[in-house]
Amino acid sequence: MHIDVLTLFPEMLSGVFNSSILKKAYEKDKFSYNLINFRDYTKDKHYKVDDYPYGGGAGMVLTPQPLFDAVDAVVKERPTTKPRIVLLCPQGEPYNQKKAEELAKEDHLVFICGHYEGYDERIREQLVTDEISIGDYVLTGGELGAMVVIDSVVRLLPDVLGNKESAPEDSFSTGLLEHPHYTRPANFRGMKVPDILLSGDHAKIEAWRRKESLKRTYERRRELIDKHSLSEEDAKIWNEFNNN
Amino acid sequence: MHIDVLTLFPEMLSGVFNSSILKKAYEKDKFSYNLINFRDYTKDKHYKVDDYPYGGGAGMVLTPQPLFDAVDAVVKERPTTKPRIVLLCPQGEPYNQKKAEELAKEDHLVFICGHYEGYDERIREQLVTDEISIGDYVLTGGELGAMVVIDSVVRLLPDVLGNKESAPEDSFSTGLLEHPHYTRPANFRGMKVPDILLSGDHAKIEAWRRKESLKRTYERRRELIDKHSLSEEDAKIWNEFNNN
Repeated sequence: MHIDVLTLFPEMLSGVFNSSILKKAYEKDKFSYNLINFRDYTKDKHYKVDDYPYGGGAGMVLTPQPLFDAVDAVVKERPTTKPRIVLLCPQGEPYNQKKAEELAKEDHLVFICGHYEGYDERIREQLVTDEISIGDYVLTGGELGAMVVIDSVVRLLPDVLGNKESAPEDSFSTGLLEHPHYTRPANFRGMKVPDILLSGDHAKIEAWRRKESLKRTYERRRELIDKHSLSEEDAKIWNEFNNN
Repeated sequence: MHIDVLTLFPEMLSGVFNSSILKKAYEKDKFSYNLINFRDYTKDKHYKVDDYPYGGGAGMVLTPQPLFDAVDAVVKERPTTKPRIVLLCPQGEPYNQKKAEELAKEDHLVFICGHYEGYDERIREQLVTDEISIGDYVLTGGELGAMVVIDSVVRLLPDVLGNKESAPEDSFSTGLLEHPHYTRPANFRGMKVPDILLSGDHAKIEAWRRKESLKRTYERRRELIDKHSLSEEDAKIWNEFNNN
């Protein structure tokens, strides 16, 4: 997979690419990337990339020319791929794990990060393939959104996560929130690990974890669960919560 | 406002703090921050901060001692504040603009970022005041989540955003998605700006924008709208969409 990020603040992203899993994945050649300042593509003699909105109003709007030309350039550089062009914006499709899995199958992703300005509507309509919002909150720019999407996608690429980093019970892939975890010491400042986890009885431990996972989901994010998809055993536990 | 971030990868965050709005806000003394590697607080002789889970299973779990001691230290450094201790995790409360506004009123925020490991449950139960999830997707660590929360909070602090960066029609603060924006040129590669925006008729422009804003919200995020809160005029437009 190759990733291009078009941004006015490439230095915002380099620290993330140079740390932890993304760094390791890059060094092991699991993906490549390019941080591109799209100001380099402006034909404006003052190097401007934004302008006042038609029709008046507060705020500035990113002009189409620099972004269309920057996308043309990164597309031309990889003539054999058909890239997804992703725009980060609050109006986009809400991002989730299913979308991460979908993007992880692509060969080439291009991210467009605006910065507090709006985007000229022609960018949305004619240039991008996906508008994504990482959540219902306002950020100063698209850079953090791009990093969130990239991080969640790259960790899904083959051989990127080692056994240590990958838990099969990842939240959202199973549909349930994770059960509680405990590690040493068994008593920390008087707070103790539940006895059952020290019992060595693996069947009981599994049952306890399943119940705690259901309980946490019930208490915090009931809407995540399609009740009809629960096993008979799980549905029984779920109904007990309902009756309490 | 003072912000402490407890992380194993401080370098992941420094690029974000050193760019754009956060950089300017820091330089203008609108907030202060500290990036703290909580590995520095471990009492383990091999500098470990995680351990195997009680009860078995894949993955590692962050031990309580380094995080409890790191939080004790940052709390002690500011004896007059009562900090919110925020844990980033997929099991947390879904983050939104209302929560950003709430956190923006605090004097002291402490963020705990785990990294692919789970957290020992005692950290959740006894150390943190808020568990936050920035969205329903899995990331390799809490750092990007912390940055998202910090960015969305700092931009709300008094005098951080200039007029240029702040649009009163921010998505999520009005409850509606933004209307389309256009800027020069009026014709770009054959794609034209809607005539109405060039008309100079401000009342018509306002009406067009309101309708487009309602339309985008209707088409993309219908669930954001409490229909009963719409004005009579807006409700009429909304019902027209329904009837088409």
